[in-house]
Amino acid sequence: MLGLMQGWPLLCQRVVDHAATFHGGRKVITRSVEGPIVETTYAEIRTRALKVAQRLEKDGIKLGDRVATLAWNTWRHLESWYGIMGIGAIYHTVNPRLFPEQIVWIVNHAEDRMMFVDLTFVPLVEKIADKLTSIERYVILTDGAHMPQTSLRNAIAYEDWIAEVDGDFAWKEFDENTAAGMCYTSGTTGHPKGVLYSHRSNVLHSMIAAMPDAMAASSRDVILPVVPMFHANCWGLALTAPMVGASLVMPGPKMDGASIYELLETYKVTFTAAVPTIWLMLLQDLEKTGQKLPHLDRVVIGGSACPRAMTKTFQDVYGVRVIHAWGMTEMSPLGSLCTLKPEYAQLTGDARLDIEMKQGHAPFGVEMKITDDNDKDLPWDGKTFGRLKVRGPAVAKSYYKGEGNEAFDEEGWFDTGDVATMDEYGYMQITDRSKDVIKSGGEWISSIDLENLAVGHPKVAEAAVIGVTHPKWDERPLLVIVLKKGETATKEDILGFMKGKCAKWWMPDDVAFVDEIPHTATGKILKTRLRTQFKDYVLPMQAAE
Amino acid sequence: MLGLMQGWPLLCQRVVDHAATFHGGRKVITRSVEGPIVETTYAEIRTRALKVAQRLEKDGIKLGDRVATLAWNTWRHLESWYGIMGIGAIYHTVNPRLFPEQIVWIVNHAEDRMMFVDLTFVPLVEKIADKLTSIERYVILTDGAHMPQTSLRNAIAYEDWIAEVDGDFAWKEFDENTAAGMCYTSGTTGHPKGVLYSHRSNVLHSMIAAMPDAMAASSRDVILPVVPMFHANCWGLALTAPMVGASLVMPGPKMDGASIYELLETYKVTFTAAVPTIWLMLLQDLEKTGQKLPHLDRVVIGGSACPRAMTKTFQDVYGVRVIHAWGMTEMSPLGSLCTLKPEYAQLTGDARLDIEMKQGHAPFGVEMKITDDNDKDLPWDGKTFGRLKVRGPAVAKSYYKGEGNEAFDEEGWFDTGDVATMDEYGYMQITDRSKDVIKSGGEWISSIDLENLAVGHPKVAEAAVIGVTHPKWDERPLLVIVLKKGETATKEDILGFMKGKCAKWWMPDDVAFVDEIPHTATGKILKTRLRTQFKDYVLPMQAAE
Ligand SMILES: Nc1ncnc2c1ncn2[C@@H]1O[C@H](COP(=O)(O)O)[C@@H](O)[C@H]1O
Repeated sequence: MLGLMQGWPLLCQRVVDHAATFHGGRKVITRSVEGPIVETTYAEIRTRALKVAQRLEKDGIKLGDRVATLAWNTWRHLESWYGIMGIGAIYHTVNPRLFPEQIVWIVNHAEDRMMFVDLTFVPLVEKIADKLTSIERYVILTDGAHMPQTSLRNAIAYEDWIAEVDGDFAWKEFDENTAAGMCYTSGTTGHPKGVLYSHRSNVLHSMIAAMPDAMAASSRDVILPVVPMFHANCWGLALTAPMVGASLVMPGPKMDGASIYELLETYKVTFTAAVPTIWLMLLQDLEKTGQKLPHLDRVVIGGSACPRAMTKTFQDVYGVRVIHAWGMTEMSPLGSLCTLKPEYAQLTGDARLDIEMKQGHAPFGVEMKITDDNDKDLPWDGKTFGRLKVRGPAVAKSYYKGEGNEAFDEEGWFDTGDVATMDEYGYMQITDRSKDVIKSGGEWISSIDLENLAVGHPKVAEAAVIGVTHPKWDERPLLVIVLKKGETATKEDILGFMKGKCAKWWMPDDVAFVDEIPHTATGKILKTRLRTQFKDYVLPMQAAE
Repeated sequence: MLGLMQGWPLLCQRVVDHAATFHGGRKVITRSVEGPIVETTYAEIRTRALKVAQRLEKDGIKLGDRVATLAWNTWRHLESWYGIMGIGAIYHTVNPRLFPEQIVWIVNHAEDRMMFVDLTFVPLVEKIADKLTSIERYVILTDGAHMPQTSLRNAIAYEDWIAEVDGDFAWKEFDENTAAGMCYTSGTTGHPKGVLYSHRSNVLHSMIAAMPDAMAASSRDVILPVVPMFHANCWGLALTAPMVGASLVMPGPKMDGASIYELLETYKVTFTAAVPTIWLMLLQDLEKTGQKLPHLDRVVIGGSACPRAMTKTFQDVYGVRVIHAWGMTEMSPLGSLCTLKPEYAQLTGDARLDIEMKQGHAPFGVEMKITDDNDKDLPWDGKTFGRLKVRGPAVAKSYYKGEGNEAFDEEGWFDTGDVATMDEYGYMQITDRSKDVIKSGGEWISSIDLENLAVGHPKVAEAAVIGVTHPKWDERPLLVIVLKKGETATKEDILGFMKGKCAKWWMPDDVAFVDEIPHTATGKILKTRLRTQFKDYVLPMQAAE
């Protein structure tokens, strides 16, 4: 028997409707690409998003069509998401930091029909435009006064474009499983893979994200998403903020420490989110200037592991609570957040930091397990590590056009490619990527644990550990080091420092000093390239016998 | 185009799965019907709920079958909900405070196949059992040692009953729109009407309830739901608490001030919820004993309007935040909560209390409008009042078997039967029931406003205002008064006190002093009966000319 409750589909446009109705005057403040600060409200955002929707229809965009955006976090980018989704078309966020060939590949694979482009990226797009054959029109996210001379097909300034309609328009209604957004994830091997979010998954994900043990977002928050809208669905914030009626502060193109500080301070931001690199810049800047963060209550840090010193500094020096989080483009992206359950809530000092170094626990709506290579469940003891697998309503079930689908099993579990421990209270800690874990004599060694150890050495700027073929143990760890500018150190210095801090058989067999470690476009260490570089490396034979 | 996200149905059993996995050791503490305090955990609750499910199947209960519960808030009642839902059967909470004939009518209308009964209610059920023809078996919520001698059909003690299975069982999977629960709402006219919650509506409602601007429930909370599970779906708490991993403290049959205080104090409860009557008892008790509430952070008060003095006392004397809430059985039940948006967050003293007297704003997932009798939208100015209509994924679309469906219009709006104002920030305030509003010369007079005024008089114990036929104005207000024990007062005393505190044309035309005002089973003033009582009342002719 079915219940007799309303069939109210979970559509993303209802989020901006709610914001405009119940939080209509709440501010959305942007550092615009043109330079000045621009203030608007959720009521205006909705009005203009309706114009975007109406104007898209006039250009022939319809349900299921993909519309690319190559843009910073601004109010116009936000409006365009809601306008696109509101007619059942799909926002496709393209990461401008990708190599131009990758952008070409992605846009062609998605068959985007239109592209919204920030002024910053017009020159970039002009260079590849002749290869972007599916794009019928470029909308430049600016007004007539700032519109550049450009060769881009049917280019028009956004403000002029939406001025051509009157806004007398209603959102379309459709199934909540309709695709809403698209984001490609560039693995370290093969082509990028497209994740296709639905309206339902976006709405559920935002509800999950707002919960008290996740981001605890409320209408009294002023949220600064430094994490770009083109990175993993903006960690959900472009939907979560209007859903709860929180004010938004959008950084536009400026993400250096001083610029971010200025926004945090001027607009009394209470909550912000970004990858560690951003916070490194901010903290360095604060140290220089001696400025404080009196309004900021909490910061979500994810995308890669948050260094212990960073958490400590935020909390002890600035009184800002750090929420370590883990997620993936395939998960919309939130998977876990490290907020404190009662079992850990009383901890202080180092014991507390130990917990805060974990990536956290899954909220309702994310199922987790760790398994061995044979899919056998492993114990939640905080020590045993295995492949981390997840399921949930905001987790992908396959990639666009089906490439890479071996990551999904028949029971719906998605193999994240991460290797993790789970502790007795359900706190997950990433120990490695499954491709990077070093398999020595049938046992696993975590490359990340070793890297974290190595960067603790005062002379080390960056460290990477990879597995190198070994006649007896299959693989043994090689530590690759970039020293801080002007420093010198020997292999013995480094290994001596690490000794006793990890299992003896985990100790790297050798240390290689390099000038630079290769990175992906999103700032992660490109281990595939490192492995190619060191593929013929011969380890000293005395080690690990 | 559809998104490519997982089809993870929103099933209630996933809530207890999550609680058992990520908050398995968190305590559920009950003052049992037998007397002693019983402690268990979410992990055990899940294990035993699985046994309930397995045992129900053995008794032939299947998807769509209704299983009645006539029970207090206890861990066994909680387990039984999850057990029932986990095979797609439907928990049907019966309010033991209804008249026996109403219970008979409801159980027969629902065609319940089984009934879970607390020891307290066995005598009550024995008296009506011969009329409950659909019930095949009674499970008495106790153990063998406490099992009474009873004539009830196939009666068995709950603990013995579940001991007959081994718990090696898996939840059933089904559509998320499958019915999960049922609750009858007894209006003031006609038969009770059945609301049929779905798994989807229950899960979405719990997510909405947990949000920071609603109940802000977290794993660090210890929640005492005084509101019974048989009243309006326990305000969602039986699902919200396990969803967020909050500890639960269940009051069992004892809801007097001293018993509630003891639980609040002993278990360091942080959050509790009930109707004003309960809190009146608690506050009276505290005043007598001089005890304080050091652990309690917030209390949700709803079901009827929270008196200003109650909010003030909780906040000023005990430092407990009051969240005034409004809802209905038809809404799962939450409709609005009075948490403070930034526009009001800075208010203090009386200005703040003015806002806190409102029933609050709707979270995402509840749409609201106020209209006149012709369904025309009325302005959100905080003054104009009209019929309050709502829509949302946890709002009913019709009643069980279709009776009373004129409350739902073609666009899905449900006419709540309440009359309310909306202010510019979306705060709703109930001014009346639409049946009770007094229509004087085409304009509306709020009976509740007048009642609130009248009870402000120091000699008045209770007040009700009804419309009485008037030759010129259609209807005019009559004020019905119960004086405090031992007090005397004249019509002029009362009206003189009210004068100048409301519009002149709102002033009651007359005052009738009575010994008692009739109430419904849930404690609301039974205005239909009052109206019958005063239907031939002749108003003095000089008034309101
Ligand atoms: N906070 C409140 N203030 C005034 N009336 C309320 C409040 N909460 C609930 N009600 C009334 O209770 C009705 C729902 O009753 P029930 O379905 O039994 O919970 C609503 O339609 C309102 O008339």
